[in-house]
Amino acid sequence: MPQTQIAEWLVQNGTIALEILGSLAFALSGLLEAARKRFDIVGMVMVAALAAFGGGTLRDILLDRRPFFWVQNEIAIWVTLIGCVLILTFVRRAHLEVTERLMQWPDALGLGVFAAGGTQIALNSNAPMLIAVVMGVITAVFGGVLRDVVVNEIPRAFNDHQPYAVLAFLGGWVVVGLNALGFEDWSAVAIGSTVIIGLRILAMLRGWRLRVWKA
Amino acid sequence: MPQTQIAEWLVQNGTIALEILGSLAFALSGLLEAARKRFDIVGMVMVAALAAFGGGTLRDILLDRRPFFWVQNEIAIWVTLIGCVLILTFVRRAHLEVTERLMQWPDALGLGVFAAGGTQIALNSNAPMLIAVVMGVITAVFGGVLRDVVVNEIPRAFNDHQPYAVLAFLGGWVVVGLNALGFEDWSAVAIGSTVIIGLRILAMLRGWRLRVWKA
Amino acid sequence: MPQTQIAEWLVQNGTIALEILGSLAFALSGLLEAARKRFDIVGMVMVAALAAFGGGTLRDILLDRRPFFWVQNEIAIWVTLIGCVLILTFVRRAHLEVTERLMQWPDALGLGVFAAGGTQIALNSNAPMLIAVVMGVITAVFGGVLRDVVVNEIPRAFNDHQPYAVLAFLGGWVVVGLNALGFEDWSAVAIGSTVIIGLRILAMLRGWRLRVWKA
Repeated sequence: MPQTQIAEWLVQNGTIALEILGSLAFALSGLLEAARKRFDIVGMVMVAALAAFGGGTLRDILLDRRPFFWVQNEIAIWVTLIGCVLILTFVRRAHLEVTERLMQWPDALGLGVFAAGGTQIALNSNAPMLIAVVMGVITAVFGGVLRDVVVNEIPRAFNDHQPYAVLAFLGGWVVVGLNALGFEDWSAVAIGSTVIIGLRILAMLRGWRLRVWKA
Repeated sequence: MPQTQIAEWLVQNGTIALEILGSLAFALSGLLEAARKRFDIVGMVMVAALAAFGGGTLRDILLDRRPFFWVQNEIAIWVTLIGCVLILTFVRRAHLEVTERLMQWPDALGLGVFAAGGTQIALNSNAPMLIAVVMGVITAVFGGVLRDVVVNEIPRAFNDHQPYAVLAFLGGWVVVGLNALGFEDWSAVAIGSTVIIGLRILAMLRGWRLRVWKA
Repeated sequence: MPQTQIAEWLVQNGTIALEILGSLAFALSGLLEAARKRFDIVGMVMVAALAAFGGGTLRDILLDRRPFFWVQNEIAIWVTLIGCVLILTFVRRAHLEVTERLMQWPDALGLGVFAAGGTQIALNSNAPMLIAVVMGVITAVFGGVLRDVVVNEIPRAFNDHQPYAVLAFLGGWVVVGLNALGFEDWSAVAIGSTVIIGLRILAMLRGWRLRVWKA
């Protein structure tokens, strides 16, 4: 894997910027879920934080990767905190439903960025291919799972019958394949993210459904 | 603790084989629970994976043991994945209830193997006795706990009033005792597993109940 | 940060003593919750253990701090176990409600001790300020969160609209500030704990409420 210092810097900082962006989208989903359940302010911030940082933290625990990205880049926490406050200030409850539909778009972004980024991070930690892909899925999906568990709902990712985690899984293999072909980290992540985001948007627009197991 | 290379090999590979077997039983329990809740395919696989690998993973995190057994032995994941697909193909929903009753048997196997194996692994990591026993219980029980939490049920292990976790606890002390008596790893695990499995089967057949706290 | 051997010994042992005390209070909260849900004995002990050790364990995992405090000080587990048995023996179910109201007092103690202690522990692990404060909150609050998740309730800390986690957050900044001012560990923790406990008792007596987000 040829890798110049500039590419390294780009990957590192690009990944961080995108992780912050994805984190914000996921934090917003946590805020909405907590608002719908009439949590207090503290509960809202906590659910938002779980949704935003839960998946990446679990990935880092599983890969034994320290410090966590949110320790290394404290700014991610500050941006998320301030983002939450701004959203709480400007979004009216009457708009919750609209907000939720709009939310699918940044959420698709988060899905792609976290899944592709998580897979690449795992590959860089020398995880075998399948494990790396699973780590990508965990990064992208488990924040939402923790969010739903904590508000006492069945995780949406498990039974809303829309392609979501499965796209993270597919995109992870794209990243793995590109790495095997000698692509550099940043381009593998960029292409992998794009594939996932594109598929997710298609799934949303076309109303794709997962095959249900009927027996 | 005398230990020849052959015994070591046996323990290592025997443990892996049994962990895969136990994982399959637990994965099946996850599939059934997810099917009953009408999860989609992705949700079913995820709940199955949580049930199968959750307990051992939590143990490894707590013992700071890396790589995880399912990273070290990727085959465990493949076998579980393929096992899930086969089960989904061959088990009809009409048979869910029957399947569930039959499931108690491999589940008893998983309970014994994971509890005894988990205790031994913790002892080998120089955990004190009580901690080792607790690690065995966590290994055997927390996959199921995570499975139940994620499908929004109260963990069966906590309130079905049948002896389950308590047998893992007892069997763990058997493993600890045998180690103290100088038994080799593999025989301590073998005897401990057998004790747990035997007690569990007795509990099932005789309908043993846990004392309920009434005050 | 000047620090003599005696101070070090005091901090270490004082922290342990207070953590055991706080653990007992949290364990009791787990017992009560499990009793209300009619869990069996095993379930009660498990929920108690989750409530007592969950927060500190999560903090140690996040800080990559091994061995865990309950591995290093096995006595914490024994005291908690024996405490549970004594409570189960002496508290009658008829008294559950009274017990719950009384429980708020040791719980306030646990909140203060865990939050201030957790923050200090994180600072000693060279965590940045904000992270250290968050670690304190996690230490104090997540045992209760896990307890509530496992009995299939929405975490009380998230939506009971009373100041709880937010006090841990404030007190954490007190600890951080005192450290910055050159106070020794033990006095920073002592003052921080006192502030949190005092505020919590005030909140209880005055019926303080968190601002609800209405939009």
